[in-house]
Amino acid sequence: MGNIKRVAVLGSTGSIGRQTLEIISAHPQRFRIIGLAAGKNLDLLTRQISQFQPRFIYSSVYFQDKKARPSGAEYEFLSLEEMASHPEVDIVVIATSGKWGLQPTLAAVRAGKIIALSNKESLVMAGEIITAEAERNRAKILPVDSEHSAIWQCLKGEQEKPTKIILTASGGPFRSYSPARLKKVTAEQALKHPSWRMGKKVTIDSATLMNKGLEVIEARWLFDMPFESIAVLVHPQSIIHSMVEFSDGSVKAQLGCPDMRLPIQYALSYPERLPNPELPKLDWESIKELTFEPPDFNSFPCLKLAVEAGRRGGTYPAVLCGADEVAVELFLSGRIKFTDIAKLVGQALEGHKAISHPALEEILAADSWGRERVTQLISGDNLGGDKR
Amino acid sequence: MGNIKRVAVLGSTGSIGRQTLEIISAHPQRFRIIGLAAGKNLDLLTRQISQFQPRFIYSSVYFQDKKARPSGAEYEFLSLEEMASHPEVDIVVIATSGKWGLQPTLAAVRAGKIIALSNKESLVMAGEIITAEAERNRAKILPVDSEHSAIWQCLKGEQEKPTKIILTASGGPFRSYSPARLKKVTAEQALKHPSWRMGKKVTIDSATLMNKGLEVIEARWLFDMPFESIAVLVHPQSIIHSMVEFSDGSVKAQLGCPDMRLPIQYALSYPERLPNPELPKLDWESIKELTFEPPDFNSFPCLKLAVEAGRRGGTYPAVLCGADEVAVELFLSGRIKFTDIAKLVGQALEGHKAISHPALEEILAADSWGRERVTQLISGDNLGGDKR
Repeated sequence: MGNIKRVAVLGSTGSIGRQTLEIISAHPQRFRIIGLAAGKNLDLLTRQISQFQPRFIYSSVYFQDKKARPSGAEYEFLSLEEMASHPEVDIVVIATSGKWGLQPTLAAVRAGKIIALSNKESLVMAGEIITAEAERNRAKILPVDSEHSAIWQCLKGEQEKPTKIILTASGGPFRSYSPARLKKVTAEQALKHPSWRMGKKVTIDSATLMNKGLEVIEARWLFDMPFESIAVLVHPQSIIHSMVEFSDGSVKAQLGCPDMRLPIQYALSYPERLPNPELPKLDWESIKELTFEPPDFNSFPCLKLAVEAGRRGGTYPAVLCGADEVAVELFLSGRIKFTDIAKLVGQALEGHKAISHPALEEILAADSWGRERVTQLISGDNLGGDKR
Repeated sequence: MGNIKRVAVLGSTGSIGRQTLEIISAHPQRFRIIGLAAGKNLDLLTRQISQFQPRFIYSSVYFQDKKARPSGAEYEFLSLEEMASHPEVDIVVIATSGKWGLQPTLAAVRAGKIIALSNKESLVMAGEIITAEAERNRAKILPVDSEHSAIWQCLKGEQEKPTKIILTASGGPFRSYSPARLKKVTAEQALKHPSWRMGKKVTIDSATLMNKGLEVIEARWLFDMPFESIAVLVHPQSIIHSMVEFSDGSVKAQLGCPDMRLPIQYALSYPERLPNPELPKLDWESIKELTFEPPDFNSFPCLKLAVEAGRRGGTYPAVLCGADEVAVELFLSGRIKFTDIAKLVGQALEGHKAISHPALEEILAADSWGRERVTQLISGDNLGGDKR
């Protein structure tokens, strides 16, 4: 195999998965796909399999229905956990969404892998377990998120921990909306996100700033920083992807075009950087200004809810994730208003009896509890005085 | 001595020298002043000597008049070159201005010292000689300029050379002035520079953008980059101190308050960073926007002259420095207009017969030639059709 890294992509048919495959195609001398795992998008998965000829394959469909599997003696059908921990895999890209990323991440961490982590829930829900297991097994968790990649790039070569992490946020498409206007926001409007190519769930989370709150919790675990030292700064142009401040007052920032392929490639090629003419470069002739403003915690209460859940710890972040996922689905299907997402998540968190230092099963149970709680609340039309 | 670094400051009574002493006072466990060298400001030097009790002393006055020397058997009176290369000196801060920095820098480089270099002329005039000698003698040239320090900080830990260096420029106090208005600019107006604490010569060079041109030449030598890969970007807020771009499209920037003590401290403490509550921190509550625009080469021809002199190489940069120093003096004394600085420097460069790969004597001769040429031009009132 020489210097070629063997990569397994979990979630290959999603936005991050597809962009990962673009990067891998651009560097055939450096990377080879050894495993592809997807959910139900068999059309695309089949095409990816024929293009990349992986050895290991997973799809939830193949798992349940063996007759649907593509023929060929060369393919091995593994579970997500088996693929993430297989001895012949060098790098595991975890691009599955939601809580489904959690157990494969844990399997990869326990196998001491290099993990290019895009799945947010792994660290948000189980950051304590996963970072402890990573340390024990010398696994490397490399961030794929543009913000965390920016912080990681800024810390490269630095001997000291930063005194502050400044996560930038685009502010979402409704940044300057009044609370009254926010109530009328439709799913269609929310899905027209201006800057990034990404899935529906993340797009809505970006609009509510829940996504930024989850990133604060991830940053806490990725960089072992206290919540007090993690700030959020709204920067609508999304050019500065995040910043770090050091004890001498120096601040370092990483900038780039809003294109996820850059942080994906960096996680794969680290500690090197690879030339890639397909990646766009900033054009300083056209960048006239970069602007900044504090986040509006009143109009976007999800940010506060998430940071607060992270601060309290235990099973709170799992309830946050479960409740948010259901609330976002309800909004996307037109059953609740944009502003109800935060209300439902807030009410779920309020009613939760948390467990400190939970085991994995307790975390997954809390996630389920959060989901059920939101379903319960909505069936009781229990959204406060605000008649819909 | 343990871990305490022994520092000699050449140019201790100037702006950078004084700020260096502030940094050293703030970290008595890390640094000790072993040498102080100054020009004619005996009042301040005497106070510095009694405060820091250096072993080695230089002043041009003491050198000529031994009776003026402070008494005390503990003092040794050395030349600048002796101090810069003395075996008991760990770090040499070269904060002398103009060509006077050149020979001490070369002495320090030949002695394999760690050199915190603030003097621009050393690399601008003799970059080829100095960087070659530094490599041969394993000397380390660490930049003290905020722009070069920013680039250096952004390159920390990176394995690959950047594809581009973006030097930011405040644009000076006359950024948006029309050519007609620029002609009427007085020395008094030019000395009211908004952002930085610095000497008169540097302040005028900042206003003409000559300073930025000299920084381009310095960057060429410090980071071994071709001129085509060094860009200048006007950024009036002076918050981003410079940027680098890598082959994958990622850009890193270093930001901070405009305070020279940060790059001074970083050069002294490198590769560590030292906490220093006296250094100001950026306040993102008050930073609303960072703006960018291309430099105006027509209104500020000194930038183009400097880059062109750097590109041509040989003795051209020495002529540039010599001619500019005399032209700035003439402007400060009210004898020529602001816009005449570029005219005189341009005319001096035009008339120069350059030598390629010059020796040190040839460089110093070219500097003298540039000075004389400007004096000649002004005595002939030879500034073109433009009657003053």
